[in-house]
Amino acid sequence: MSDRYDDKRIYPQAPSIPARDQQHARMWGFRDSAFVVREGTIALESDRYSSGGHLLPDFPPFVERAVGVPFDAGDRHEPVAPVIDPPLSSKSLVAALVAALGEEGVSQESDVRLRHGHGHHLEEIYQVLFEKLGRVPDVVVFPRDDEQVRAVLNAAAEAGALVVPYGGGTCVSMALSCAEESRAIVSLDMAEMNRIEWIDPVERTACIQGGAVGRVIEEQLREHGFMLGHEPDSIEFSTMGGWVATAASGMKKNRYGNIEDVVLDVTVVTRSGVSEQTRIAPRSSHGFSLARLAIGSEGMLGVITRAVVKLHRLPEVQRYGSLVFPSWDKGLAFMEEISSWQSAPASVRLVDNMQFLFGRALKPSTTPAIVSAIQKLVVEKIHGIDVEKMVACTLVYEGDDDEQRDLERRITRAAKKQGGFGAGGSAGKDGYNLTFGIAYIRDFLLQYWTLGDSFETSVPWGKVNDVIAAVKESITSTHRSHGLAGHAFITARVSQVYATGCCIYFYIGFHYKGVADPMAVFRDIEHHARLAILDAGGALSHHHGIGKVRAPYLERVKSSEALRWAKEAQRAIDPDGIFASGNQGILPRS
Amino acid sequence: MSDRYDDKRIYPQAPSIPARDQQHARMWGFRDSAFVVREGTIALESDRYSSGGHLLPDFPPFVERAVGVPFDAGDRHEPVAPVIDPPLSSKSLVAALVAALGEEGVSQESDVRLRHGHGHHLEEIYQVLFEKLGRVPDVVVFPRDDEQVRAVLNAAAEAGALVVPYGGGTCVSMALSCAEESRAIVSLDMAEMNRIEWIDPVERTACIQGGAVGRVIEEQLREHGFMLGHEPDSIEFSTMGGWVATAASGMKKNRYGNIEDVVLDVTVVTRSGVSEQTRIAPRSSHGFSLARLAIGSEGMLGVITRAVVKLHRLPEVQRYGSLVFPSWDKGLAFMEEISSWQSAPASVRLVDNMQFLFGRALKPSTTPAIVSAIQKLVVEKIHGIDVEKMVACTLVYEGDDDEQRDLERRITRAAKKQGGFGAGGSAGKDGYNLTFGIAYIRDFLLQYWTLGDSFETSVPWGKVNDVIAAVKESITSTHRSHGLAGHAFITARVSQVYATGCCIYFYIGFHYKGVADPMAVFRDIEHHARLAILDAGGALSHHHGIGKVRAPYLERVKSSEALRWAKEAQRAIDPDGIFASGNQGILPRS
Repeated sequence: MSDRYDDKRIYPQAPSIPARDQQHARMWGFRDSAFVVREGTIALESDRYSSGGHLLPDFPPFVERAVGVPFDAGDRHEPVAPVIDPPLSSKSLVAALVAALGEEGVSQESDVRLRHGHGHHLEEIYQVLFEKLGRVPDVVVFPRDDEQVRAVLNAAAEAGALVVPYGGGTCVSMALSCAEESRAIVSLDMAEMNRIEWIDPVERTACIQGGAVGRVIEEQLREHGFMLGHEPDSIEFSTMGGWVATAASGMKKNRYGNIEDVVLDVTVVTRSGVSEQTRIAPRSSHGFSLARLAIGSEGMLGVITRAVVKLHRLPEVQRYGSLVFPSWDKGLAFMEEISSWQSAPASVRLVDNMQFLFGRALKPSTTPAIVSAIQKLVVEKIHGIDVEKMVACTLVYEGDDDEQRDLERRITRAAKKQGGFGAGGSAGKDGYNLTFGIAYIRDFLLQYWTLGDSFETSVPWGKVNDVIAAVKESITSTHRSHGLAGHAFITARVSQVYATGCCIYFYIGFHYKGVADPMAVFRDIEHHARLAILDAGGALSHHHGIGKVRAPYLERVKSSEALRWAKEAQRAIDPDGIFASGNQGILPRS
Repeated sequence: MSDRYDDKRIYPQAPSIPARDQQHARMWGFRDSAFVVREGTIALESDRYSSGGHLLPDFPPFVERAVGVPFDAGDRHEPVAPVIDPPLSSKSLVAALVAALGEEGVSQESDVRLRHGHGHHLEEIYQVLFEKLGRVPDVVVFPRDDEQVRAVLNAAAEAGALVVPYGGGTCVSMALSCAEESRAIVSLDMAEMNRIEWIDPVERTACIQGGAVGRVIEEQLREHGFMLGHEPDSIEFSTMGGWVATAASGMKKNRYGNIEDVVLDVTVVTRSGVSEQTRIAPRSSHGFSLARLAIGSEGMLGVITRAVVKLHRLPEVQRYGSLVFPSWDKGLAFMEEISSWQSAPASVRLVDNMQFLFGRALKPSTTPAIVSAIQKLVVEKIHGIDVEKMVACTLVYEGDDDEQRDLERRITRAAKKQGGFGAGGSAGKDGYNLTFGIAYIRDFLLQYWTLGDSFETSVPWGKVNDVIAAVKESITSTHRSHGLAGHAFITARVSQVYATGCCIYFYIGFHYKGVADPMAVFRDIEHHARLAILDAGGALSHHHGIGKVRAPYLERVKSSEALRWAKEAQRAIDPDGIFASGNQGILPRS
């Protein structure tokens, strides 16, 4: 079977996703990739990532430095068998679903229910590994088209059930969590609606189904000379529909925009019909836009079954770069300067010294020691930079060779103004790709008594250091107040830049052995850090969204009227409350 | 009185708008500026615009060429005294409004009611000048703050009246028209809420009231070293609130974005409260966004009383440029190429040959004939370009000197590839500013039996020529079918570019003397042109919006479910229907 063409549009065949591309049922990532203990140290078992297959001897010492407690490869916190509640008895609901989708479209298997009952917030993974998840979806369905989606919604409405749309399951806002739900729960998995329906090379648009996965979308588009350019950290697993629902942001947003810039239309299916534009234009002023309302709707407006997106031709060149600066403040000044330009590199990220060391700690043992030594010498002696203070910036350039060369020249000059210098393209590429490995690390270290998580915010340039200082102060102090061993790990990066500010992405961690209720401590630390961010002028979320975990803070960022109206608008479109899952505090009208 | 500062924010004083800046009550523009007949030809009386004060001897011959009928300066279609219906008797409503706002905040004067009863759609101006406007607002109010806005809404709701928010009155979608309204009508004029409430130089944001006027906003921001960069053609008169309500687009959108990229938050006031964010971030994922729903809401969501916007520092350089191409297709190829770059000049507009000649016809008699002759010679002999086929492009560069120089160099190279060459900065500046004069011309020529209007669409690159050809064919044929004198005038420009397409802006016109019902003919011509655009792949509107004039075509661009949901969402937020004015076909629940 091959792609179909007519006189204008391309109809790609359904993606054939290799069996090895299966996701892990309980933890982050592909089943074939994992950090493991080997030969007394840590190794990455994977042929997907750059350090895969190698021992990482610098990693355990880094963990000790990070959390102040030695990493003990022999002391594992053993995961338990997953515990979930049995499904609610809902025979007529299941029968109606089977009638609509066939047996193959409906599952009540425990593993399937487990996987659909959580996203990747730390607390969810902790429950999966060591405690119990409790309430999870009672039944999981896999509709194949809009009509089947509507049939599911009708069956759910008749049974008074909740429907939770499910894409890549990578959500970190607990939007998928159903712990408090007393109704029957239907997880509506978009996995069977994972196609690029068409590519229009004339209009330079594509219609992509809600369940299509980021990495597969880019692979398929590339075959036809196009790309989307939307690269969230979760691109390996997250989906078109999930991007819209969470108001996602991509690493290359300087060139291709965030999701609100990427989508031209969003199709939303509810019981009563299919809302979409029938004429898609490069830009339009067509009145009220339900597509705009779908951005950030977190599964509560309807089922996002497809989106029409802007395409870009594959760039003439793609180049990586990296820069080293003598201090965080110098690096930050560089970031702020280039953000005021008309265009910055497609991606530009600044990591602090701790995160730079983190990246170095993940180098395999095969890196000749001499190289590191020479690098250190160059940095210290030639450039006069203190390796204990230096920070690094990774860059991705995409576009016309000529245009990108001009940009690189200006970047070099701007870096020099701040005492920075170029550290090469391969370091840039490693830095850019590091993000894909980090998510595996969290779930690995969790089993060795080291708890870690990430959270992000968006901050005006003038308040970046205030926010970072407030977070460090808060976490250090809360960690101390709980009398924990070692110290808290806190590292920050600027992951996206805007003319008026940036996204700051934090990783935090601590050693939790001997702690009676590690999740309570974690919640307390995160709660105070969140308040510290809000007090210092940061957003509640830059791109992770609200879901359930950040809902209690919504009143800190919106007027009560804004919150009331969000509820009214949601209810107007979902009068039965079948999508009112508690995300953003929105529940069915009682 | 001077601007107030605290430790962080700047609180600019209320703008003092000069008395001479009064708008014309019936037609487009400032009262002190108008095209007039003088010495047997046309002159522009104004000291605001570049050709002001001069005779324009080339203009009458151009009109003849454009519509095929000689311009007769002695044959004026004399305007009549404006005719509007008397106000509905609504004593208790007016009394309630006066109680809330004071006498000075409420007006029932005929002139005021007249001005608030129309926008600038051709049909409205024709009615004002030659026929009757009929139903206009019964009372006009000028609230000073959110509380007064709510008081107006409460009074209106109790009286069962319609409320029409009013900004600059520049709307061309008949969104302000009340012809069919049987309820009492309150026009809510935002003129008293015209301040920049604050500028935050640290966060690089400003809070701007809904009634603040574009040109005044930029003047005030400039005093503090900042700019907004949003420059719709109507910037002299249109307002912050109006921009949001119509989903406005600016000429410099390549650099500063359209209105959806400019605003970080929108405050919407209804009877029940004030919806806004209390924490504004450079970018956020804070769930459902009523601010996003306000974009394109056309006065039907509530009253947009303020917006928080991104600011930019004043650019190091601003430079104009112009290019000449041997043909439309060459110019278009240039436009498409640069639109795929990471950044294009802040503004880049391509006018067809007819519009190029239009611009030349507006040159004052003081331009030495020898200059034109030399220019013509250069174009024809040196560059081998046919002046009857050539097209022109105006460019505006804003930003860092270094960055913009790189861009100019690449632009020159790209133009050369298409046989284009640079024609100087002053031609570019004239071309860019031409747009401000054209709106006056329409209302002037209307009084000399020449009817003209503009409309816009948004089109994928691959369909630009199809759409233009379809419009020309449609208009020529409809014009012919009505047996009109002369021929139809049709000219097109590409006014905004996107990676996937562009905005095409059309001017059309025809001679209407002796036509029994010129508006019926105009409607017929526009109707068929609109269908031709839709059939050929264009949008219903790029930035003018829907209002009442394009509402009948909405079902061509959205699914019926999308239209139903827009109604439901509107009603959820405006349950009393006080904003349901018929725009986008949305009326109160009957």
